[in-house]
Amino acid sequence: MAPADPQCATLLVTCPDRRGLVAALAQGLHGHGGNILDADQHTDTGAGQFFQRIRVDLGELHSDRRSLEGAIGEVAERFDMRWRVAYADEVKRVALFVSKVDHCLWDLLLRIRSGEMSCTPVAILSNHPDLEPVAEFFDVPFHVFPITKETKAAQETRERELLEALDVDLIVLARYMQVLSGDFVAAYPNRIINIHHSFLPAFMGGRPYHQAFERGVKLVGATAHYATTDLDEGPIIEQDVVRCSHRDSVPDLLRKGRDLERTVLARAVRWHLEDRILAYANKTVVFS
Amino acid sequence: MAPADPQCATLLVTCPDRRGLVAALAQGLHGHGGNILDADQHTDTGAGQFFQRIRVDLGELHSDRRSLEGAIGEVAERFDMRWRVAYADEVKRVALFVSKVDHCLWDLLLRIRSGEMSCTPVAILSNHPDLEPVAEFFDVPFHVFPITKETKAAQETRERELLEALDVDLIVLARYMQVLSGDFVAAYPNRIINIHHSFLPAFMGGRPYHQAFERGVKLVGATAHYATTDLDEGPIIEQDVVRCSHRDSVPDLLRKGRDLERTVLARAVRWHLEDRILAYANKTVVFS
Amino acid sequence: MAPADPQCATLLVTCPDRRGLVAALAQGLHGHGGNILDADQHTDTGAGQFFQRIRVDLGELHSDRRSLEGAIGEVAERFDMRWRVAYADEVKRVALFVSKVDHCLWDLLLRIRSGEMSCTPVAILSNHPDLEPVAEFFDVPFHVFPITKETKAAQETRERELLEALDVDLIVLARYMQVLSGDFVAAYPNRIINIHHSFLPAFMGGRPYHQAFERGVKLVGATAHYATTDLDEGPIIEQDVVRCSHRDSVPDLLRKGRDLERTVLARAVRWHLEDRILAYANKTVVFS
Amino acid sequence: MAPADPQCATLLVTCPDRRGLVAALAQGLHGHGGNILDADQHTDTGAGQFFQRIRVDLGELHSDRRSLEGAIGEVAERFDMRWRVAYADEVKRVALFVSKVDHCLWDLLLRIRSGEMSCTPVAILSNHPDLEPVAEFFDVPFHVFPITKETKAAQETRERELLEALDVDLIVLARYMQVLSGDFVAAYPNRIINIHHSFLPAFMGGRPYHQAFERGVKLVGATAHYATTDLDEGPIIEQDVVRCSHRDSVPDLLRKGRDLERTVLARAVRWHLEDRILAYANKTVVFS
Repeated sequence: MAPADPQCATLLVTCPDRRGLVAALAQGLHGHGGNILDADQHTDTGAGQFFQRIRVDLGELHSDRRSLEGAIGEVAERFDMRWRVAYADEVKRVALFVSKVDHCLWDLLLRIRSGEMSCTPVAILSNHPDLEPVAEFFDVPFHVFPITKETKAAQETRERELLEALDVDLIVLARYMQVLSGDFVAAYPNRIINIHHSFLPAFMGGRPYHQAFERGVKLVGATAHYATTDLDEGPIIEQDVVRCSHRDSVPDLLRKGRDLERTVLARAVRWHLEDRILAYANKTVVFS
Repeated sequence: MAPADPQCATLLVTCPDRRGLVAALAQGLHGHGGNILDADQHTDTGAGQFFQRIRVDLGELHSDRRSLEGAIGEVAERFDMRWRVAYADEVKRVALFVSKVDHCLWDLLLRIRSGEMSCTPVAILSNHPDLEPVAEFFDVPFHVFPITKETKAAQETRERELLEALDVDLIVLARYMQVLSGDFVAAYPNRIINIHHSFLPAFMGGRPYHQAFERGVKLVGATAHYATTDLDEGPIIEQDVVRCSHRDSVPDLLRKGRDLERTVLARAVRWHLEDRILAYANKTVVFS
Repeated sequence: MAPADPQCATLLVTCPDRRGLVAALAQGLHGHGGNILDADQHTDTGAGQFFQRIRVDLGELHSDRRSLEGAIGEVAERFDMRWRVAYADEVKRVALFVSKVDHCLWDLLLRIRSGEMSCTPVAILSNHPDLEPVAEFFDVPFHVFPITKETKAAQETRERELLEALDVDLIVLARYMQVLSGDFVAAYPNRIINIHHSFLPAFMGGRPYHQAFERGVKLVGATAHYATTDLDEGPIIEQDVVRCSHRDSVPDLLRKGRDLERTVLARAVRWHLEDRILAYANKTVVFS
Repeated sequence: MAPADPQCATLLVTCPDRRGLVAALAQGLHGHGGNILDADQHTDTGAGQFFQRIRVDLGELHSDRRSLEGAIGEVAERFDMRWRVAYADEVKRVALFVSKVDHCLWDLLLRIRSGEMSCTPVAILSNHPDLEPVAEFFDVPFHVFPITKETKAAQETRERELLEALDVDLIVLARYMQVLSGDFVAAYPNRIINIHHSFLPAFMGGRPYHQAFERGVKLVGATAHYATTDLDEGPIIEQDVVRCSHRDSVPDLLRKGRDLERTVLARAVRWHLEDRILAYANKTVVFS
């Protein structure tokens, strides 16, 4: 991966698999002066679906972005494509949701600051005030929305107003210990990334490390996925595991898990920010 | 690990955790002329249980094995220990159960022949005749017990008679596609090792790679466990995973899984043969 | 990966990076009725080199393979491409070189027989007679070429005559304990795959597990690479490692290494057979 | 691992392998009222050396620590043991050396603050002022010792005076880009942990990720080791690797490496703090 060039754009395409697709898109981009830097594609033959990610250098574009999008739109219509294009100079705006546990928050903010991920963290939302000092250190506005059974609906409304006002592109649940309502989730399809602290679909629901300890597994895992209305059932973006043994107590599993959670979540967020992920049929295509 | 010395014995001990345990056992073995080569122990503080594996060189034993066992028995009574001792010169007798799929069978027989595992394969039992040529190549007697719903009980009786006649110490279900009855399993507690082709407890039951494909996981796994009356619920001995992606079709997952299954099963069988495993509370302690 | 369709072809291309490349090739194939099933590409911006692998369905080709190759050749000339095309119905012919150690040989032959890799094993060559029974079991002709310092040159000449007579596409050194001469290696550029039993470039040369033991490493590895005239210096195709500890003796490292060697070698061979590898600048591009 | 009990002590022992060792030590500790919580041992049969780690509960000690140490000393003399005992209530004092790169520093300080490692960070030493804000955030004194060829010897003297004044138990080189002199290193035998950003012994010396990129490896690694006078040659404590491919540029390898470096270094430091490591013959025994 080369560092993101501001003149670069990334095109993501999904459509029914058809002859001539690849040539038509390549021709369309080339015709407008776009130089294809990288193209990766995948066909799910069972589902009859085609997926493509194309990185284009727009530095010598003959026309402007609107015209280019028009040209893509024409090909798209012909081949029944869903598509989106992301420009490297339009940096994504990210909101982070947290509760009291801080390792994923630290990890993401340090990575963002080091330039490892390209995005602007516009807000940290929490149901507890505990992590405000972290937000302060990184100069990211911190908003507390305490949640009780009674206030949940109202607080979610306020949260969504804030997210809308901030024009948020991506929400990251960085060990946020509340379940978002179905309405909330539905408003951000494939734009909310959650980290679940187990190797899904094993140990869904609460206290997964305790479940893993009871079951006596020899590996513990973590799973980053897009949030859907069914808790812990959304499309999986990334998973990883670490070896454990009879010597590991629950606190040991929690410790090992923290390392996993932050690396797995960071990979998923980075891939989303680099427009590498296409979700379909409760799965993901992740272009490397 | 040093190669097994014929004068060696391995003592496995489980008991409630009590002061003075370790010193008493060490003293008892030392007093009879046993030289402790290796000792590994574990305490499950939550369960209040103590576990120990001791390898002893009996080359300069003052007395005989019976007296030594008597001495261990005395300490054991004092501390309420369950224990067993295995002598390196009493090679374990193993029966392999298979169906049609051959990769685990090949793998185990090649490892046994290469000296990687110390055991005598005394029989291969199958519900299909397909793998007889493999048995022939390694000169292991092959027995076919076709199973239908109607004949299952009777066939299991015959199988158990054969196992008893052969004085079998360990049964390995090397991708045996039949479920053993509860009676059968209960007759060999912690002496039947099964390989399940998923990362348990994810994807229990049939066709786990198809389940994994549908769920879109990013890792597939395999699990070796002792068989219990609850299918796929027995104490886990070993697990491992391999990375997969959207590019992997079900046949790809099957292929990757075969590599996992054979290495995971081989590790579990070797550890059992080396008396490294203590099962308790539906878990295992595996001494390295 | 879908199972290889006999009507399929794989095109591998390397050339200086230039605008319009991708569109020109896609257009050329499409124009002759080839349907692009899969295309993967890579640009090494530092080296200014472009690499592409395209899988094409030729089932509805307007013309014949010669014409198609002519069309590719025209684009190739325009863009200064080196290219080759492999047809799925032209199964590759493989020769296996072994000495006395058998685990890689067993592994490859079992995988080939199971259909996991598409190739025809046309000969097994060895400097020792020991592994003839394995060859017999799989019905592959076995040829012994004993090597001494004095006979080496003459024996290599005879080996190369045999390989030529058999029209061999790929040579696999499956733990062959002789060093091939520079002439031999040069005659099969990027067509000889060797498995080195360490994580190269650590522990080059002989007895790498002994070296690893002495150095006290915490992981041991294996490396599959194309053979070049500089021993253990050729382009790396695949590597993997396994964890070890102070408890592992040299025989333990050898045992763990055997598992690595066979899986790493098998992956490298399969990728070569599927035309996924492009070697350049002493490296490889391996398209997934 | 149970959380460290303040009444706990850890005894580490090395000696020539002799009969009766284990029983004598166990008896000695038991006789003074020490309760053995955990004992792990290892024999390097080739080197004829015995290693043991014993965790003892001193809560019901009949005498005091001096008497206990006297008793251990007697057994030690009899068996020619080198030994040391660490008390859980004597928290180790750690100095961190850094330059400009901050990921290992952040990682260690966050882990220490979260209670994941038990130690007191008494000073951060650097040859550059850049990371002072990190030190400030965690309230750890920050000392700048700029190093030039001319000032190096004098600055090292000042650094060692500071370390002595602070009674430092362990020095962690958390990506410190200066080579310590032989005298300095010799003053802290097996008490300086360095993180090298490659899988040693591959890619010793400078710019290892660039070396790895040039060589085209398929895995990159990191190695934590005790510093010795031979740079990058000290006893290895821990290593790990992560997969890479032709798609990874040098900045990608650097990014992947940062994740490795911090987890590998953190494990090594934690194990040292928990008195799990015995170094000998340029290797380590790491008790799990």
